[in-house]
Amino acid sequence: MVQLVSFTQGGRRRPGALKAGRVLDLAAAGLPAGAAGDLLALVEGGAAVLDTARAAIDRWAAPDHAAAEVRLEAPIARPPKVIGIGLNYVDHCREAGLPEPQEPVLFGKYSNSVVGPYDDIVWHEGVTTEVDFEVELGFVIGQRASRVPEARALDHVFGYTIVNDVTARDIQFAPPGQWDRGKSLDTFCPTGPALVTADEIGDPQTLGLRLTLNGAEMQRSNTSNMIFGIAHLVAYLSRTMTLEPGDLVATGTPFGVGFARKPPVFLKDGDDCIAEIDRIGRIRNRARVVRAGG
Amino acid sequence: MVQLVSFTQGGRRRPGALKAGRVLDLAAAGLPAGAAGDLLALVEGGAAVLDTARAAIDRWAAPDHAAAEVRLEAPIARPPKVIGIGLNYVDHCREAGLPEPQEPVLFGKYSNSVVGPYDDIVWHEGVTTEVDFEVELGFVIGQRASRVPEARALDHVFGYTIVNDVTARDIQFAPPGQWDRGKSLDTFCPTGPALVTADEIGDPQTLGLRLTLNGAEMQRSNTSNMIFGIAHLVAYLSRTMTLEPGDLVATGTPFGVGFARKPPVFLKDGDDCIAEIDRIGRIRNRARVVRAGG
Repeated sequence: MVQLVSFTQGGRRRPGALKAGRVLDLAAAGLPAGAAGDLLALVEGGAAVLDTARAAIDRWAAPDHAAAEVRLEAPIARPPKVIGIGLNYVDHCREAGLPEPQEPVLFGKYSNSVVGPYDDIVWHEGVTTEVDFEVELGFVIGQRASRVPEARALDHVFGYTIVNDVTARDIQFAPPGQWDRGKSLDTFCPTGPALVTADEIGDPQTLGLRLTLNGAEMQRSNTSNMIFGIAHLVAYLSRTMTLEPGDLVATGTPFGVGFARKPPVFLKDGDDCIAEIDRIGRIRNRARVVRAGG
Repeated sequence: MVQLVSFTQGGRRRPGALKAGRVLDLAAAGLPAGAAGDLLALVEGGAAVLDTARAAIDRWAAPDHAAAEVRLEAPIARPPKVIGIGLNYVDHCREAGLPEPQEPVLFGKYSNSVVGPYDDIVWHEGVTTEVDFEVELGFVIGQRASRVPEARALDHVFGYTIVNDVTARDIQFAPPGQWDRGKSLDTFCPTGPALVTADEIGDPQTLGLRLTLNGAEMQRSNTSNMIFGIAHLVAYLSRTMTLEPGDLVATGTPFGVGFARKPPVFLKDGDDCIAEIDRIGRIRNRARVVRAGG
């Protein structure tokens, strides 16, 4: 399976393709890298550019690198929008003590929170003491979507990635409710390792997803358990908002998050968090607390 | 007073300067226009680019146009972030029946909502029946801000603009609360007419602001009445989130919004909404309902 990635090598960020432990430089193969050097320009390029990328990957004729020698970055460093969906798995609604929603629940995760698949999750001492993890399937919009019917909604999805929707619960639940703030701390949206195109994924409602903390399994479910599936989400969101190429939607997390456990589990300095989704891979992020005066 | 604007003339969007009814083409004067053609590249350029812009404006040597012959656009068409602040005037908290907040209340207004100073506010029949107006002072970040103290916070503000924080109340208040969705419909964030640099404004907590609907005054207050002033907001937001050049913060609306009136007042097709702020100017937007099948 070929996976699209953003990577840094020699100090420059570029779009690439990951296959069998090698990363092909798609900018060197003539694909657009845009101002950001990530996959955004390729996604914005539409079907023709994606076809060109596929041909370049088939030929594998441009310079490539051992995957271990480059740094994988967030597939899209600054998505035009990052939309979170809350309470989209029944067992997560139950553990959170909230009723199953009648419609998708939206929240914002500002793009400053986005980091790469192996970057640290960092917060400053004194800002939060309740940092929680949430493995989620993310989808990235390819083709602009405004008021699209559910039957054609998946045509607007470019591909899929993994999101750890890291959340400061003490900030999120501060009165009168600060979801967007608690979910948008810098580094609180690790994404990657790849953006896997929709055709490689097939049915997005069949993917196992798991999260382990320091090797212990905390979350395990399947995207078949979503209350509102991807096609419904695209149609619903696009009723009021134009979805634009590169927009990232995090589709909600299943049962097993830390705050709902007895006793609660929150990330501590040095913790090792791995989020995995079938056919996409895994992201691994270490928690790091910056001490006052440190 | 010189005002920075984005404008379209001959089908191309460009950064400009508005003075005495004429618009100077800053792209023709050599200033960066970026991919978007608006003021974002100029804002990102920092102090040196702003000095170059000021010198070009002083010379007024590049091509210019009568303001009436160009179309003024949103100063920044797609801000990296648009952050809304709720409940930031005491009299608005009272009319909304909510307690005065202990900290700034954040919500998201996705960038797809941003339109220009004279663009229509548009919604589709059946999507909402409770569209409300909110005049607000908007500020735009110039210099990246991460954990900045309040005493230096205003150094990070590039300038100020007017925001009408248009809101679909029936969506905003749908359980369990959908602020981000109700505030992010396409066209629900008219901005402009200009981005006025911070030095031209002076103290941002001294500005009168007003809103009229079909000629009748609905809101009148002064930014001196804010609960949390601009410097506090920058410091507070930057404690958890890096603020980036071009980010737009809408600082909350005073007393007089439609939903709190008895009987409530909501925008109807054809309504004429003018939002004004001292030293910045006014924006004027017409409400337009797209009928089913229309």
